Amino acid sequence: MAKIIVAFQPEGKRVQLEPGTTLLSAAIKGGVDLTSICSGQATCGKCRIIVEDPTAVNEITEEEVQRLSQAEIEKGVRLACCTKPNSDLTVKIPETSRTGKQQLQVEGIETPIQLEPNVKKYYLEIEIPTLEDAKSDVDRLVESLQNAQGLPDLQVNFNLIKELAKKLRDYDWKFTAVVWKNQIIDIEPADTTSRIFGYAVDIGTTKLAGYLIDLTTGIVVSAGSLMNPQIPYGEDVIARLNHPDQNKLQEVVCEGIDKILEELVEKTGVKREEIYEMTVVGNTVMHHIFLGIYPLYLGRSPYPPVVRNTIVIPARDLKITINPNGPIVVLPTIAGFVGADTVGVVLATEVYKKDEMCVALDIGTNTEIVLGNKEKLLAVSCASGPAFEGAHIQFGMRAASGAIEKVEIDPETLEAKYTTIDNEPPIGMCGSGMIDLVAEMLKAGIIDVGGIINQNLVHPRVREKDGLFEYVVVPASESGTQEDITFTQRDVSQIVLAKAAIHSGFKLLFKRFNLKNEDIQTLYVAGAFGSHINKESARMIGIFPEIDLNKIIVVGNAAGTGARMCLVSEKAEILAEQLSKTVQYLELGIDPDFQKVFLNSNIIPYADLDEFPEMSQKLKELGKYPENPPPKF
Amino acid sequence: MAKIIVAFQPEGKRVQLEPGTTLLSAAIKGGVDLTSICSGQATCGKCRIIVEDPTAVNEITEEEVQRLSQAEIEKGVRLACCTKPNSDLTVKIPETSRTGKQQLQVEGIETPIQLEPNVKKYYLEIEIPTLEDAKSDVDRLVESLQNAQGLPDLQVNFNLIKELAKKLRDYDWKFTAVVWKNQIIDIEPADTTSRIFGYAVDIGTTKLAGYLIDLTTGIVVSAGSLMNPQIPYGEDVIARLNHPDQNKLQEVVCEGIDKILEELVEKTGVKREEIYEMTVVGNTVMHHIFLGIYPLYLGRSPYPPVVRNTIVIPARDLKITINPNGPIVVLPTIAGFVGADTVGVVLATEVYKKDEMCVALDIGTNTEIVLGNKEKLLAVSCASGPAFEGAHIQFGMRAASGAIEKVEIDPETLEAKYTTIDNEPPIGMCGSGMIDLVAEMLKAGIIDVGGIINQNLVHPRVREKDGLFEYVVVPASESGTQEDITFTQRDVSQIVLAKAAIHSGFKLLFKRFNLKNEDIQTLYVAGAFGSHINKESARMIGIFPEIDLNKIIVVGNAAGTGARMCLVSEKAEILAEQLSKTVQYLELGIDPDFQKVFLNSNIIPYADLDEFPEMSQKLKELGKYPENPPPKF
Repeated sequence: MAKIIVAFQPEGKRVQLEPGTTLLSAAIKGGVDLTSICSGQATCGKCRIIVEDPTAVNEITEEEVQRLSQAEIEKGVRLACCTKPNSDLTVKIPETSRTGKQQLQVEGIETPIQLEPNVKKYYLEIEIPTLEDAKSDVDRLVESLQNAQGLPDLQVNFNLIKELAKKLRDYDWKFTAVVWKNQIIDIEPADTTSRIFGYAVDIGTTKLAGYLIDLTTGIVVSAGSLMNPQIPYGEDVIARLNHPDQNKLQEVVCEGIDKILEELVEKTGVKREEIYEMTVVGNTVMHHIFLGIYPLYLGRSPYPPVVRNTIVIPARDLKITINPNGPIVVLPTIAGFVGADTVGVVLATEVYKKDEMCVALDIGTNTEIVLGNKEKLLAVSCASGPAFEGAHIQFGMRAASGAIEKVEIDPETLEAKYTTIDNEPPIGMCGSGMIDLVAEMLKAGIIDVGGIINQNLVHPRVREKDGLFEYVVVPASESGTQEDITFTQRDVSQIVLAKAAIHSGFKLLFKRFNLKNEDIQTLYVAGAFGSHINKESARMIGIFPEIDLNKIIVVGNAAGTGARMCLVSEKAEILAEQLSKTVQYLELGIDPDFQKVFLNSNIIPYADLDEFPEMSQKLKELGKYPENPPPKF
Repeated sequence: MAKIIVAFQPEGKRVQLEPGTTLLSAAIKGGVDLTSICSGQATCGKCRIIVEDPTAVNEITEEEVQRLSQAEIEKGVRLACCTKPNSDLTVKIPETSRTGKQQLQVEGIETPIQLEPNVKKYYLEIEIPTLEDAKSDVDRLVESLQNAQGLPDLQVNFNLIKELAKKLRDYDWKFTAVVWKNQIIDIEPADTTSRIFGYAVDIGTTKLAGYLIDLTTGIVVSAGSLMNPQIPYGEDVIARLNHPDQNKLQEVVCEGIDKILEELVEKTGVKREEIYEMTVVGNTVMHHIFLGIYPLYLGRSPYPPVVRNTIVIPARDLKITINPNGPIVVLPTIAGFVGADTVGVVLATEVYKKDEMCVALDIGTNTEIVLGNKEKLLAVSCASGPAFEGAHIQFGMRAASGAIEKVEIDPETLEAKYTTIDNEPPIGMCGSGMIDLVAEMLKAGIIDVGGIINQNLVHPRVREKDGLFEYVVVPASESGTQEDITFTQRDVSQIVLAKAAIHSGFKLLFKRFNLKNEDIQTLYVAGAFGSHINKESARMIGIFPEIDLNKIIVVGNAAGTGARMCLVSEKAEILAEQLSKTVQYLELGIDPDFQKVFLNSNIIPYADLDEFPEMSQKLKELGKYPENPPPKF
């Protein structure tokens, strides 16, 4: 059968495909920016596109009728995952279906660390072989280095051995040896001891961050980031680990990591061969997919990881172009849902050496909380879900241009004041905006502590539509999409569910240690999302306990900081492996109190309002404190 | 330009080639059996072929005119390496240019050794993960095995990790773990502990030998061999290491090793996945080429090897199909011309644990001699050259069908009685035949102890041709080539030179230890060639000192035995690495006596005839003892 040509607008990208292929597959194939959260399962409804000629595609499906409004259907809106062209056609991708140029936070806390990298260089001039002394080139190299530097038990990388004879003679026996741990991985002509670089990578479900580090100083020379190129294959970890073509997911993430590096080396003039080690962090699913480890059981109860330990593999095996003999060190994981990124956060925040109790929190689709001190550390994973990333929220989106990121609601007029990313006209709201919204709606009396929209409010901003109450955040006249941007009862509930999952984690961890809020010395909030949220709003709605705001420290991409620390310090790498064993994973689901705590956490901020005295006081001042205490289980 | 078709007869093999390609390249490309020693340098003159239509090829070259007789040129004989076809043609390969179906000795001494293989299997039934115990699959596997068997510090092969989650569940948590050293390399469904195999390989310059070993008993299940497929690329190690396409040489030898294995598994029903380790020996050039190590400097003074140590690489990296996670263990070398095969011989002969002085001798293009006992071992390499393999000998050939392998000369009639390999009509002579010839010619008075043909002999068997004296071994009437098969003055000198090189090695080793012939408890003669020579002839012409014939023990392919021992015993493998360091290499060229000893060794058996009393007595009995003592330096 003849191929069909699809032109995606506004890019004008033309993609050739076989009849029977969906437009989502075509967009992925063509590298067209089109959101999909459910990976083509027709459940997320995010891959809306507009088909100009309805006769060029299959008829609308049952799933689409459920997901799309009548107005949308009339305008030619379809779900790309359900639409299969039968002849050439043009497809429009609306702005709301774009992944967008996402805010990609790469900065993380700088944790002071002694410079002791695994990679070292030594300049040598060695004796040439003679008939009296014709020992092997490898023995000559190793003995020279041992004699000059007192290094014991040196090995030589096998790929270097293959070329060693030629290199030694081409370099006239004067060269710089590159040593990684106890392995000589390369030799270079003349004295290159001033040039040693490493590459630290944080593989996030949403974004990749890469850091080029000068290992003679420990300083970040340049950093860059990229959307995780796996996103078109599924937005969340569950969609990714269920994807049938794991090799492809591995390939695209490695390409992405290499692409960031390309920018970094172009910007800095560092050569790829001068990068001798790469360290990697990521959640357990990202970790397994990156390494080509069968990930399916990470998604099935009881969710064991395949491997916990630190993994070292040659960069060449993953086609990531650093020095060809350089290793990739992938930090260890803790559990199926507490990954190498959490190990990085623990390293960076140094909670493992605190006298007082501290918490490290990394909010995401899965939210990890590590609580403890130098005596003991417990980790939990909370199934907070993708609501903060915009999924299952009618006007939800990720932190991209045009996303509402801050909101204040005037308690008198109920009008919303907001700011958007890049100051673009609003097209939706991202996580930090939604958290503000819930807090502000509560303070304004639009919702109560049960998260229910006050149906008795008579106000143009609060209305019922198709049997569902909603708050109009942005009227169509101000909106970038010429539509009202609203926050519905269902959206509020989604956010409350997400926060309930996280709060339950805190609650059960506190119970284990028998702690009160005031016992916490510091709460470290890690991750890109954590860097953008309004600490007060987040605390008000009970994402975390009512800890003194001054004790809450935003640490940015601390996972990336952990990866960098392992490049800069061999001790940090060893410590990471130890931490992956000593940090104990606590499975929330098996705590007998879990169900009760979770239900109580569905109250904003918590069924027992006394645990939030500041917040209670605020509501009282505003006259919004509930007359009857909320139900408590 | 159009392709040219060459048909090689008698096979009838048709090869397509570009104009400008030599017939030697075409033969190699087509897998046609055609000898070449110099690897296409037009110096060995061995790749003689017959072109039927002289207009179909380039004109005869200067090099060919030098190498070919007028009669040959008239018959259309050309050197394949100098001949380039310009149109389709038929080429005949005479029997004398065939590598032939060579005698391939695989049997070696059986050295008793305790069964302690590196590969072990353990059957396990392990607890399934639960929410209470969701440790990683790797930790679960390792801990189960540690608890059941008390194995410490276990690692899991990374390629197994990739598939571990699926395998554990597919096997319902009941499986056999395959452990190599401290690494779990595979798991298999149910109980397979009775099936453990290994593959030992000896890469000879001329032949490959492979041994399939049952590692539950240590017994050789089956053995096979093959001509080294590198031969068409150059017959000796120097031609091989100088070959421009090292990747090709590596590829064909790996294919050859895999081909032997194919026969062994077909014959025995053992599955390739049940072979968990492969061990390899070979001389240093074979070792380096097999591993893809740049070999060029092995051929340049001072001839250092690139690497001495034991090398372990995954079999999959060399595309040799044993268990995909099984390692290849390549035994260590000692020096540039004392390779892993010598380490194998030392292991097999156990000279390293003798109280008395012993010698291990492996005769070849390079002849290695190891002398010593449990206190000290010295190794030398003697540049004996390829004469014993037939190179530079007019009617020399390797030990293939039709080669004269045994000769007796009637001292009265000077007629030769001979036997040939496979009892085929004689077409040339192999090494053992030539050694007999020199000894018999000496006893018959055809040559003197200086190796000079007696020009005063009036006899139809001893004649002058083109200014060169020669002995007619086989008259044309008996010969498989319808030509006289002769042994010329130049041939005698080649054999004497070869034996002088070896004898010098003995002499200088004896000097180092201050030994007399009677101090030697045992002389082990290893290798296929050593298994075929007549010990008495070899001793008579001075290949080795006059040691009691009962003390000379032929041990066959002892190098292969060494490789097998390293499969069967982890201690043997460790010992091999130790021996490669403790056996001291003695460079003959720098011994101040070398030149003198070498010149004296050019006398048959040695300038000092008193060192060979038995042989002297024999000559006296035959009336051939020299009247004047030979010159001595």
